[in-house]
Amino acid sequence: MRIDIITVVPDILKSPFEASILQRAIKKGLVEIHLHNLRDYTTDNYKTVDDYQFGGGAGMVMMIEPIDKCISELKSEREYQEVIYMTPDGERLQQKMANRLSLHENIIILCGHYKGVDQRVRDQFVTKEISIGDYVLSGGELGAALLCDAVIRLIPGVLGNETSALTDSFQDDLLAPPVYTRPAEYKGWEVPKVLTSGNFPKIEAWREEQALERTRKLRPDLLKDE
Amino acid sequence: MRIDIITVVPDILKSPFEASILQRAIKKGLVEIHLHNLRDYTTDNYKTVDDYQFGGGAGMVMMIEPIDKCISELKSEREYQEVIYMTPDGERLQQKMANRLSLHENIIILCGHYKGVDQRVRDQFVTKEISIGDYVLSGGELGAALLCDAVIRLIPGVLGNETSALTDSFQDDLLAPPVYTRPAEYKGWEVPKVLTSGNFPKIEAWREEQALERTRKLRPDLLKDE
Repeated sequence: MRIDIITVVPDILKSPFEASILQRAIKKGLVEIHLHNLRDYTTDNYKTVDDYQFGGGAGMVMMIEPIDKCISELKSEREYQEVIYMTPDGERLQQKMANRLSLHENIIILCGHYKGVDQRVRDQFVTKEISIGDYVLSGGELGAALLCDAVIRLIPGVLGNETSALTDSFQDDLLAPPVYTRPAEYKGWEVPKVLTSGNFPKIEAWREEQALERTRKLRPDLLKDE
Repeated sequence: MRIDIITVVPDILKSPFEASILQRAIKKGLVEIHLHNLRDYTTDNYKTVDDYQFGGGAGMVMMIEPIDKCISELKSEREYQEVIYMTPDGERLQQKMANRLSLHENIIILCGHYKGVDQRVRDQFVTKEISIGDYVLSGGELGAALLCDAVIRLIPGVLGNETSALTDSFQDDLLAPPVYTRPAEYKGWEVPKVLTSGNFPKIEAWREEQALERTRKLRPDLLKDE
């Protein structure tokens, strides 16, 4: 999989791809991440990427021309399944969307900044608008990193243990059950006895019950979707 | 405001705080970010922070002892309003929660990794569990960076233009209206005439109408909350 990220602050995105699971996925050749600095696609001496908004008001807007230039260049080199724009009014990212996106070969992620991009960019070039949640950030960069993380960890071979991602929260519309590790007792706080019983059918039943109970209590909406 | 972030992969979190708005907020002295490597709070030679889960199953679990040590040390130095754990089954982050958190003086953010932390950590030390959305990431680090971004940009003085954050999506339960900038025409795609009319009451009315229409179409649930 190849992911091209278009941004005005590529520096923000350096360390998330240089550590842990994402770094390993890149080193293994399972994914390629290309950061594109929008300023490299400007034509004026000041490398202007934003301007005041028409009609007045606080906050700058990202201009259409450099974005058009960057996307056009990428598209001339290969076919992209999606041009994604990170925006708080996009379709909400959830696990099933991450699953689907992980099957693509090439995607572009455009990060908004300031007040966002000129609406014509969204109308003409963007094929999918994604929101990571109902809150506003200073830019789309962290959302893009997060989307990459959610998607890349699902690519076969990225996680050490293939079965690990399948037992995550949301993969079966249930929250994950509580987990415990050693020591069995710490400052008087004990691990539930069933987990140290060695009775695996009983442990499985307890986990299912706990997952269901936790989902019912914290996220009944997940159960209603069925 | 002071934010202490506890993590096993502090490297992931370097660049988000070294660029753009978060960097400026730190330089201005409006916020302090302290990264704590959980491995510094281990007592064995291998600096073990995780172990197999009781009852078997894929994925490692973060141990209670190093986390207890780190949180206890921080708490002995100052008072914290919240000890936050980033987890997909936590309370969903939304703009109003970010607003409230931005008023705190000191908070701790604990990042899960692998299969998450020993449940006893959540039961004994955590005061608030936050989810950034219904998807699973390889760790809580990007969520923590994102939470910091959402919160810090609301601290007075952080954004250049004070009014900018107030016109963001969600601050009034409406999505933001479309924005446009120069040129007024690009490849035949024009800016809506009203925005270049100079008639400000008309522009305001158009924006409100667009915000409402967009919200009705994309996020009718936001309007129902009223």
